[in-house]
Amino acid sequence: MTTSSTPNLAPDLLSIGLERYGTKLRSGELSIEQATRAYLDRISVLDPILSPYAYIAHEQAIAAARLLDQQLSSGVDLGPLMGVPIAIKDNIMVDGMPCLAGSHTDVARRLNGEASFVSLLKARGCVVLGKLNTVEFALGNTGVNARLGTPRNPWDATCFRLPSGSSSGSAVAVAAGLCAFAIGTDTGGSVRGPAAHCGVFGMKFSAGRWPMDGILPVSAALDALGILTGSAQDAATVWRGLTGEPVVVPREPGQIRLGVSKPYFFDNLDPIVDTAMQAALLRLAQHGVQIESVAVQNAHEVDGLYNILSKSDLLSALGQDWVKANADRINPDVLDRLSEAFHFTRSDYETSVERRRVLSRDVNAVLEQVDALLSPTKREVAPTYDSTEMSVDYMRTLSRHCAGPTRIANFFDLCGVTQPVYIPEGGLPVGMQLMGGARAERSLLEIALTIERIIGAPARPDLSAFFR
Amino acid sequence: MTTSSTPNLAPDLLSIGLERYGTKLRSGELSIEQATRAYLDRISVLDPILSPYAYIAHEQAIAAARLLDQQLSSGVDLGPLMGVPIAIKDNIMVDGMPCLAGSHTDVARRLNGEASFVSLLKARGCVVLGKLNTVEFALGNTGVNARLGTPRNPWDATCFRLPSGSSSGSAVAVAAGLCAFAIGTDTGGSVRGPAAHCGVFGMKFSAGRWPMDGILPVSAALDALGILTGSAQDAATVWRGLTGEPVVVPREPGQIRLGVSKPYFFDNLDPIVDTAMQAALLRLAQHGVQIESVAVQNAHEVDGLYNILSKSDLLSALGQDWVKANADRINPDVLDRLSEAFHFTRSDYETSVERRRVLSRDVNAVLEQVDALLSPTKREVAPTYDSTEMSVDYMRTLSRHCAGPTRIANFFDLCGVTQPVYIPEGGLPVGMQLMGGARAERSLLEIALTIERIIGAPARPDLSAFFR
Repeated sequence: MTTSSTPNLAPDLLSIGLERYGTKLRSGELSIEQATRAYLDRISVLDPILSPYAYIAHEQAIAAARLLDQQLSSGVDLGPLMGVPIAIKDNIMVDGMPCLAGSHTDVARRLNGEASFVSLLKARGCVVLGKLNTVEFALGNTGVNARLGTPRNPWDATCFRLPSGSSSGSAVAVAAGLCAFAIGTDTGGSVRGPAAHCGVFGMKFSAGRWPMDGILPVSAALDALGILTGSAQDAATVWRGLTGEPVVVPREPGQIRLGVSKPYFFDNLDPIVDTAMQAALLRLAQHGVQIESVAVQNAHEVDGLYNILSKSDLLSALGQDWVKANADRINPDVLDRLSEAFHFTRSDYETSVERRRVLSRDVNAVLEQVDALLSPTKREVAPTYDSTEMSVDYMRTLSRHCAGPTRIANFFDLCGVTQPVYIPEGGLPVGMQLMGGARAERSLLEIALTIERIIGAPARPDLSAFFR
Repeated sequence: MTTSSTPNLAPDLLSIGLERYGTKLRSGELSIEQATRAYLDRISVLDPILSPYAYIAHEQAIAAARLLDQQLSSGVDLGPLMGVPIAIKDNIMVDGMPCLAGSHTDVARRLNGEASFVSLLKARGCVVLGKLNTVEFALGNTGVNARLGTPRNPWDATCFRLPSGSSSGSAVAVAAGLCAFAIGTDTGGSVRGPAAHCGVFGMKFSAGRWPMDGILPVSAALDALGILTGSAQDAATVWRGLTGEPVVVPREPGQIRLGVSKPYFFDNLDPIVDTAMQAALLRLAQHGVQIESVAVQNAHEVDGLYNILSKSDLLSALGQDWVKANADRINPDVLDRLSEAFHFTRSDYETSVERRRVLSRDVNAVLEQVDALLSPTKREVAPTYDSTEMSVDYMRTLSRHCAGPTRIANFFDLCGVTQPVYIPEGGLPVGMQLMGGARAERSLLEIALTIERIIGAPARPDLSAFFR
């Protein structure tokens, strides 16, 4: 696929991968300022069509890039993330940039100062291109944000398809090559879901893996940061850049044990998703990956329990009085979701906490038998969206089309990745999810690299179709 | 204690801790160049007495400091390690600095290019003050290096005491405030041992936690990097700076379960060590730390098995022919240790590997019951040393005086820390060791912080005594 017929579009640096990009910077073939400008040019052409960006930090990005070029030319090498242009979900504070968290309310004023995680990315040499659209308060899996703008899934130029949410802008920006990688947050699947529907790689880190200050909370127990990248290989490079750990090496297929628990995880799959998953599982098994049948007991309970915890926590963080006072400024679908929490009792909440503790044992027992749990990330492909239809029922229907077995990871304190497994010509992406134990990021990345070698690097959407 | 009577000695920046040092840099109270020069001045006064340094990188350090000052003043903040003056054990390659690995042979010529771990420290903003003395090939626990110089333990001005080894220079430099923290390597206790005998905090990372290129290997299976710091608090700051993880917070004493396995670990203790350990255990228990009796079966087997693996691996890395050809240029005590490997058979080696696998299960089972194993780091305090006595028997005796139950961590792929527990007025340091599972560094640091709060921050040697 090519974007050559797209007007005035500079080459997409993402397609060469972060490692080769770093080599080009260090050989002097490319400057960080040039790369940053190429992304900004690309954003100026594609953001009006796909609208992943909530704020484009043109001047700040170029100033940061120039400073990094100076550092590099004076012999300072900050490592694998030096000079990498990134973008940040708009529920995370970045100095000198607005932060709305997808809302017309003043909710983001509660955040003081830049998120430590953003400062960390800057210290590692990243250039921040801007902020990315999100579902309001990051509460919702569709990507719809009727008030501030719904990013468009770049995989279909014939009709508007949703990117999924809540890190909707993050997934669209990466899929369309509008940043080298994006930062999202994931309380129930908000990184993995959009990554799956937009055909990119996504990783939800373990809860507590990174500092969470400067990020609008949903639930302290369930919230996690995540990255969306062009490939598992790029995610491995980001991991190395962030942590300083050794290069992540693919694991031998025969050394990988993946657990498949069919009930719940594989229920109600769209035939396309079902077929893509079966093909992927077959391919992995043919290459020697051990696929084992396991049983995660009572997984079907999780969505209900999760619902109580996450919405109660968000309501309590926002304040019941504040929500009531701001009801008419909150997106109707978000208010619909949040309002459910008004009806939960203290006893509902305590029961959920206790049940979480009990069920965690079962999941951890399964994760002692296998390296990771394997499932589809979403049950269907990205749905179409009619922005003129605003009813609560329609929004609930969209939400069902965007469902997937992702909350398990947040509920049981696991980390997780999604990677595109197969995208037929002219088709839509299907994501495969792996979930591993808390702090098992490195192990998941090793496995994802192996799978990427077996399945092939992710395809990219044909953006020229938007200009025909 | 004070160093005020010591001539021309600039204030020791280490004593304020890394966090406060960072605050001073950022408030402009101090520049990185000033701090670097203060350390270099201190080195010029104390290195002639204590000789931890193998190479002092005066010009490079000042140039690096100036560049970092420029970065900081142009708004670049590399995080908690920015502007921190450090020093590197001389078996690790640093660009533009000699590397001898404690040897008169050309062994270090085998290393090509700077160790990735050193590049990482530089990328995080550290200033490298120089290279630190080590036992030849890092093979030996005494600190003696008759040919290149034996660093002196700063805790006794009345007679020459050994610092322990092999990261002898690293421990002496930190104890004497001649770098903010030091890098060492630990194949059987080479970070923890010297840290214990010199009264500083030491952490052996899990094997494979960091890239190991650019470091002269002893044994790929057993080698690990480590840090030596002025306190557990500083180690936590270094950890945060390296990894980007959230601030490490002390764990509630009641949430800490430490396992004590008396046989082997507490055998043959010097009465001073025994008393100090008993006092420390009592103090911890009084503060609510759960001390549990556990049984690490067959721990006494480890020293013998370790001996076979480590020496065979080093001999095979160096090459038998090379060792024979260079025998007269190798320190006699090191050659004595290494030569043992000529007598090990292939079957000895394979038996050790297999036995390691079997015994690992026992240790891991114990570590499921407790957060860490607790033991003394060394069985005795730092011994005196007569450099005119060179006999192999004397060297073997010194090695026995420097023994401790530290190899367990390398043999079973654990991480470990040592922290000084109690130093009586005019006395010598005693180190307490904690060993946790692979990649449990964060958990060990949480516990070490709690212990440091209970026991008190480490005392510092009275260096003015050397000038009376």
